[in-house]
Amino acid sequence: MPAAGIEKAHMTDLAPEEFRRLGYAVVDWVAAYRAELPDRPVRPDVLPGGVRAQLGTLLPEDPVPLELLLSEMDRVVVPTTLHWQHPRFFGYFPANASLASLLGDLLSGGLGGQGMLWSTAPAGTEVEQALLDEFAAALGLDAGFTFAGGGGGTIADSASSAALVVLLAALQRSSEGRWRDEGVTGRERVYVTAETHSSLAKAVRVAGLGGRAIRVVEPVPGSVTMSAEALDQMLAADAAAGLRPVLVCPTVGTTGTGAIDPVGAVTEVARRHDVWVHVDAAWAGVAALCPEYRWLLDGVAEANSFCTNPHKWALTAFDTSLLWVRDATALPAALSITPEYLRNPASDSGEVVDYRDWQVSLGRRFRALKLWAALHVHGLSGLRAHLRRHVRLAGALADRISAEPGFVLAAPRSLALVCLRLDTGDPQADDRATRELLEAVNDSGRAFLTHTVVDGRYAIRIAIGGITTGEDDLDALWEQMRDTARALRPGAATHLGSARKSTGRG
Amino acid sequence: MPAAGIEKAHMTDLAPEEFRRLGYAVVDWVAAYRAELPDRPVRPDVLPGGVRAQLGTLLPEDPVPLELLLSEMDRVVVPTTLHWQHPRFFGYFPANASLASLLGDLLSGGLGGQGMLWSTAPAGTEVEQALLDEFAAALGLDAGFTFAGGGGGTIADSASSAALVVLLAALQRSSEGRWRDEGVTGRERVYVTAETHSSLAKAVRVAGLGGRAIRVVEPVPGSVTMSAEALDQMLAADAAAGLRPVLVCPTVGTTGTGAIDPVGAVTEVARRHDVWVHVDAAWAGVAALCPEYRWLLDGVAEANSFCTNPHKWALTAFDTSLLWVRDATALPAALSITPEYLRNPASDSGEVVDYRDWQVSLGRRFRALKLWAALHVHGLSGLRAHLRRHVRLAGALADRISAEPGFVLAAPRSLALVCLRLDTGDPQADDRATRELLEAVNDSGRAFLTHTVVDGRYAIRIAIGGITTGEDDLDALWEQMRDTARALRPGAATHLGSARKSTGRG
Repeated sequence: MPAAGIEKAHMTDLAPEEFRRLGYAVVDWVAAYRAELPDRPVRPDVLPGGVRAQLGTLLPEDPVPLELLLSEMDRVVVPTTLHWQHPRFFGYFPANASLASLLGDLLSGGLGGQGMLWSTAPAGTEVEQALLDEFAAALGLDAGFTFAGGGGGTIADSASSAALVVLLAALQRSSEGRWRDEGVTGRERVYVTAETHSSLAKAVRVAGLGGRAIRVVEPVPGSVTMSAEALDQMLAADAAAGLRPVLVCPTVGTTGTGAIDPVGAVTEVARRHDVWVHVDAAWAGVAALCPEYRWLLDGVAEANSFCTNPHKWALTAFDTSLLWVRDATALPAALSITPEYLRNPASDSGEVVDYRDWQVSLGRRFRALKLWAALHVHGLSGLRAHLRRHVRLAGALADRISAEPGFVLAAPRSLALVCLRLDTGDPQADDRATRELLEAVNDSGRAFLTHTVVDGRYAIRIAIGGITTGEDDLDALWEQMRDTARALRPGAATHLGSARKSTGRG
Repeated sequence: MPAAGIEKAHMTDLAPEEFRRLGYAVVDWVAAYRAELPDRPVRPDVLPGGVRAQLGTLLPEDPVPLELLLSEMDRVVVPTTLHWQHPRFFGYFPANASLASLLGDLLSGGLGGQGMLWSTAPAGTEVEQALLDEFAAALGLDAGFTFAGGGGGTIADSASSAALVVLLAALQRSSEGRWRDEGVTGRERVYVTAETHSSLAKAVRVAGLGGRAIRVVEPVPGSVTMSAEALDQMLAADAAAGLRPVLVCPTVGTTGTGAIDPVGAVTEVARRHDVWVHVDAAWAGVAALCPEYRWLLDGVAEANSFCTNPHKWALTAFDTSLLWVRDATALPAALSITPEYLRNPASDSGEVVDYRDWQVSLGRRFRALKLWAALHVHGLSGLRAHLRRHVRLAGALADRISAEPGFVLAAPRSLALVCLRLDTGDPQADDRATRELLEAVNDSGRAFLTHTVVDGRYAIRIAIGGITTGEDDLDALWEQMRDTARALRPGAATHLGSARKSTGRG
């Protein structure tokens, strides 16, 4: 009865022919927006309150043509947006909202289902399971992280959420099941480094442990990476003091500098102390899709959980954070609560995965479709070429920095992340000049950079990973930085430019 | 330089013309899927593992045309999907993934930004602030929930997440700021009813309080709604026992039966005991957009926070859960953590909202665009008509149930939620027959229903709210239920059919 169907489809909603017309218009808008990005300033020129001051009424009493919303996008939204998809966006970490992944997400919205239970989304659940199993294999993760191996994966919205649920599973496990009813004791401790992402501290706070539960492990001397020896001593001392170590979080690719903790050594220590190991590889983990970066996952086979985010560097729009655990019962043991209205025969059978028990929220989208679409359209080979291009560009940039008087790498290059500062031997003046260099680049709108602090010194981070970022973009950035630095510190290049050089890696 | 732009836009990504072609194809696919829904069975005929058994390789080594993914959607995904957008989907609560909202979401994906800070998304932040302020006004919420009034709103992914962050803010407040560093004490208590959504129990568990921290307040005699008197006594007794009441959660429209707690009376009591009141109106709250249902928010003006989900019943795709708080500093006080790489002048100025501090995750989408698009295309008037249609349909169904021998309303109708059971005076046989009725309807594929338990009795929930659900769908459902019940319990209608009738409300 197609005629009946078409008639039904617009009780309140857009009629199919109208949806097609407007859908095409939005696709065209997105295509044009992306194509024009290189010609826009990356960062908008807007002050707090400057957006609202331009907005009219957002909720009209009566329907308004969608075209007028597109006009508002052009008039207000785009000029006040920081353009994360711009080829010269080098801030934070990249946000790979590939066009193919957007189409996968549109398919998910088209289905419009809720994936809280297998029974509410059999396809959504099993496609996600299968996709996570295949992605694990593509990364070279141990088969113990697949469903067939007794573990399994899920798509969380973010690495923050992944870290939180893993911490909860670790609390449940370490309390021998008492945590669910009795809560935390105040004696639990979580082990990180000074470079660990702030989401771990947030997870610890959310879980009710308080900031005092965070234990910062000393680094390997001369580095910022976690010392397994220091961890060993700390775990032993804490246990002896009546504290309860529950989680150790080594990072593969820290946000600040891309540092890589020695996962194997850390895991070996943690297992001896019976502590859950969660490996946060949010940014760098996907690089293990390339055989030459498979070493990034050394030691992960022995960890309890592992997280990496295709929405950063693997061509998939936010929110797509992949989390694997070695024990498929661990998250449900911590998170399952079943009121009557969610009971169903499939769940009772124990034969299915109910993904609500792998996350805090009940509702969930069919996120697997955007990852599937991106990998389908680009292939693993296309994704590897994308990753390798950025690493190559970063290597070339690091070489230029190392060769340029007055510039220095602030940390060893890590994959496609380059940290630098100006260096003439006067720390205070150099920090100020480095900050001025960042501000001058950002103010120009020609590129966007963010900063960190390394060894107490202000440093510019250049995170290369934009979907459309190419050699010309790096050439333009480098020329601008070099020329700006010369203008900021005239004569500096002739003095101490060759001080302290670091070399790349990865 | 449009030529340069177009050339740049497909370094890795689809070229603009290719994206247009594929984007149109996906829009067409969604339009066809939605149009054909009335002719599909609502529930798929699939067993655990039945999806994976049909899937081929999901991650191809080399690129594959997107058309083949659409084929896989047709071949595997659609036949194994529970169709939440089907006009005869009456399970759980509706999931209003309107087509207009999908286009707003596509615009958000097109921008592809990260809204963690104002400085990373000035437009995303301020559009969300403005939209939440306008939506608050449209609901008739007190101006104290707007940013101008010292409060403000945010879009969470779900009411579960909203409840969690509100609990954390309440913990921080009630501990006078010690919670952030010291964690929970084990003495905190949270007050709900037996009908409160399980997300509250989950939030309490996640926050480290343990299930023992949940205090179930006795209902008003003869109802399932929270007794303010019982709450008063419980709060006083707990405080006297050295416990620390932190949060009371009345519900406007429970999941089981749509019951509405007396928010005003509860809030008056809670304020006397200095306890945070969070009103969970996830499903029903949006009905307050209609003046005749404004009474749903009676008492909310004095609450500390309020949540309602347009992704249920207000024409907006998941994830769109609106949360307002009366104190704009409450969530950041609990949730803010600022590592060096997130510091920026706008945040330091204190003049902006950084929405990462209103949620657990760091990253976030520009979710406001999908709500904006839906309300733009349909208008508040269209949304009100949508809400009123469902309430009218529910009223007509409840009348039929009340008039039909052998059927009885299991609870008073609440807005567009109808709960019923078969009733011939033999509780065990009736419960079994009611369950068989639900299973027969679901097995037929002609409609989808879920259940709950009311007063210990098995009851069918009929949640009306589908975007395309119309009178003919309710006619078909009612005829099927009536005929099926007669077949299941032949002769029952002649016996005790007129036992215990309840009447509707709302």
